[in-house]
Amino acid sequence: MAFGYDTITPEPVAKLIDEFNRLPGIGPKSASRLVFYLLRAKREQSERLANAIMAMKDSTIFCNRCFNITVEDPCTICTNANRNERQVCVVEEPLDVVALERTGEFKGLYHVLHGAISPVEGINPEDLRIRELLARLRVEPIEEVILSTNPNLEGDATAAYLAREIIPLGIRVTRLARGLPMGSDLEYADEVTLGRALQGRREM
Amino acid sequence: MAFGYDTITPEPVAKLIDEFNRLPGIGPKSASRLVFYLLRAKREQSERLANAIMAMKDSTIFCNRCFNITVEDPCTICTNANRNERQVCVVEEPLDVVALERTGEFKGLYHVLHGAISPVEGINPEDLRIRELLARLRVEPIEEVILSTNPNLEGDATAAYLAREIIPLGIRVTRLARGLPMGSDLEYADEVTLGRALQGRREM
Repeated sequence: MAFGYDTITPEPVAKLIDEFNRLPGIGPKSASRLVFYLLRAKREQSERLANAIMAMKDSTIFCNRCFNITVEDPCTICTNANRNERQVCVVEEPLDVVALERTGEFKGLYHVLHGAISPVEGINPEDLRIRELLARLRVEPIEEVILSTNPNLEGDATAAYLAREIIPLGIRVTRLARGLPMGSDLEYADEVTLGRALQGRREM
Repeated sequence: MAFGYDTITPEPVAKLIDEFNRLPGIGPKSASRLVFYLLRAKREQSERLANAIMAMKDSTIFCNRCFNITVEDPCTICTNANRNERQVCVVEEPLDVVALERTGEFKGLYHVLHGAISPVEGINPEDLRIRELLARLRVEPIEEVILSTNPNLEGDATAAYLAREIIPLGIRVTRLARGLPMGSDLEYADEVTLGRALQGRREM
């Protein structure tokens, strides 16, 4: 941060370094590199970037059914008559929907929680779209909930919490398989992954 | 890039991912992470970022004497009567000025080339502010030019080119010292650095 406050960096430059620095994964060094890049680039590039930021903020909303980002509510997945309404895939983030759609393996609907339960970060079930998920389960013809939260501590805690809430409703609850990732090397797999791969072994 | 073109990412989101992706050091994955962060953050943060980009572009210019970025031309270093006009430090980028100013060791003026000679990237002497530097040497009372281009292939080539042009004018030309960086470990120093450190050894 000291970067923005030296006496020879013009104030508008220091200010933009500060703003970039606020973004996740961008430290003061990358922030200044970005700013000095824009300084030298054509004015149009800065204009396009600034306009794209505001256009994104102004024209996107969250789907009131699945809480994915969308330009129309409900979103194109929720209104697609070809999707299977009996399966709902629960994910943490809109990006996870993109990843799952890329597989082409899932034809059901989604529900985006917008985070995972994390006592450390003070994120409780009521901070996520869990109430809305339970409400959907009451009114929609959902037969299976596929818990696709991340395979880490917070994702597992969230999945466990949801399973406890949903199983009593008589709805099938599944979790994405754990195992060795494609193209990986057994020798370098961590023991948790390898252990899960063993537990989840399947007949050939 | 495939990222921006799937069917379920709303167009304004895909567009902003593309714009972030155009910036140096930001790949498609970081670009989407930034966009989804902004999506969830308060509208004010996006507004501040977009405004800071345009404010920076609108209010900064290059100093017509040293070509550093500035809000006033000439810049505050060039107009500072306490700076030593007989020394000029030649750097590649405005960021290098910031780095040198932080040392507090240099009280002369600067000249920013805006790049280094690089035949590979098609950057020739006439693409840099070299003509302007030579013009300054003719009219300003400069007695020493400190070549502070980067200690790499392009920086060294640029320094060699400048030395050839300036020495015949009877002006002293120096280059920043090469050697082991502070806090480094001899054992891990690369052979070029160590070789230069040997060549540049000084009496204790």
